[in-house]
Amino acid sequence: MKQLHETLSINAQGRRLYDITPQVLQWVQQSGIQSGLLTLYIQHTSASLLINENYDRDVLVDMEAFFNRLVPDGDELFIHTVEGPDDMPAHVRTALTQTSLSIPVLQGRVALGQWQGIFLFEHRHLPARRRVLMHVMGE
Amino acid sequence: MKQLHETLSINAQGRRLYDITPQVLQWVQQSGIQSGLLTLYIQHTSASLLINENYDRDVLVDMEAFFNRLVPDGDELFIHTVEGPDDMPAHVRTALTQTSLSIPVLQGRVALGQWQGIFLFEHRHLPARRRVLMHVMGE
Amino acid sequence: MKQLHETLSINAQGRRLYDITPQVLQWVQQSGIQSGLLTLYIQHTSASLLINENYDRDVLVDMEAFFNRLVPDGDELFIHTVEGPDDMPAHVRTALTQTSLSIPVLQGRVALGQWQGIFLFEHRHLPARRRVLMHVMGE
Repeated sequence: MKQLHETLSINAQGRRLYDITPQVLQWVQQSGIQSGLLTLYIQHTSASLLINENYDRDVLVDMEAFFNRLVPDGDELFIHTVEGPDDMPAHVRTALTQTSLSIPVLQGRVALGQWQGIFLFEHRHLPARRRVLMHVMGE
Repeated sequence: MKQLHETLSINAQGRRLYDITPQVLQWVQQSGIQSGLLTLYIQHTSASLLINENYDRDVLVDMEAFFNRLVPDGDELFIHTVEGPDDMPAHVRTALTQTSLSIPVLQGRVALGQWQGIFLFEHRHLPARRRVLMHVMGE
Repeated sequence: MKQLHETLSINAQGRRLYDITPQVLQWVQQSGIQSGLLTLYIQHTSASLLINENYDRDVLVDMEAFFNRLVPDGDELFIHTVEGPDDMPAHVRTALTQTSLSIPVLQGRVALGQWQGIFLFEHRHLPARRRVLMHVMGE
């Protein structure tokens, strides 16, 4: 049983979903792990992780639209406004989605379903450098 | 330290919560792992995983009712409608709940709390065959 | 590769976010694990786990306010009311946040981001004793 760590850096250019599937799959393949468990962890509270459909780009547009309506920028409910009208909504959107994801590795492959992709969900409007930790354990 | 993988297939018969606790507990017991970590991973983007109360069936009814109201079918917000009025809501409901779950295994038992059950949350109305990957690592 | 389990008990005094970061970090440090994976698992369906900003306390107030508005106590939608007007909302709030979290351990440290804290999110108004299982695996 062995393990490896790596950090994935993503230069997010504003609020939207970023497909990070290729980078994750490539790293796991290079690790040589044939059977085990992959964990992804994002080190932020205004960006999150999401497994989502990877086929029709309209799904990404709609996902974004839903969260924009559910957690509107500049909501008068919020008192934490010092970092901008999209900051507290970003924390809420992060809370409603995922900070960590665990995915089995089988026969040397990350066992995503046919229509699944791994996305970084950036919730701030300004560009931000985001860090996703990757950890794989197995043999 | 050893590990095992298995796939659980569930024939979901429309939108609702399906209790998969017995199958999961049985598999872990058969694995012989006394101490370790169980991970569940669902290979879909319109069905998800949820730890929920396993006692009063009304909780399942209310959970369903809440999500139906929060993410209504046929919402005019959505442009991804080609797969039906419940498809994009299914993706959103999946994003709001879980794709992976990790639960410690202690003394040969999955360490669920007294009132916790493990549920597959089917978000589509039509029947669908769903795959949940199970992975346990320990000794 | 070794592993350890521990149970963290928290005496929650009503609905709010409780910072459990110090207890978690201390336990992992004492474990001697330098590299591996930490998993946290809460054994309840009316309290949950959340990675959230640990700096400005207003963020916690706003997070609480958002969930109070999204899932109001005493909502007439709910039929499971026998355990009080805040019980079914507590189950929904749990479903919308996390029951398990996985965080890599690097150089003997839980790899939280700079502004991240680990919180128990209590959703009931009455005091409750909550159990969070901690599991670390690594070397």
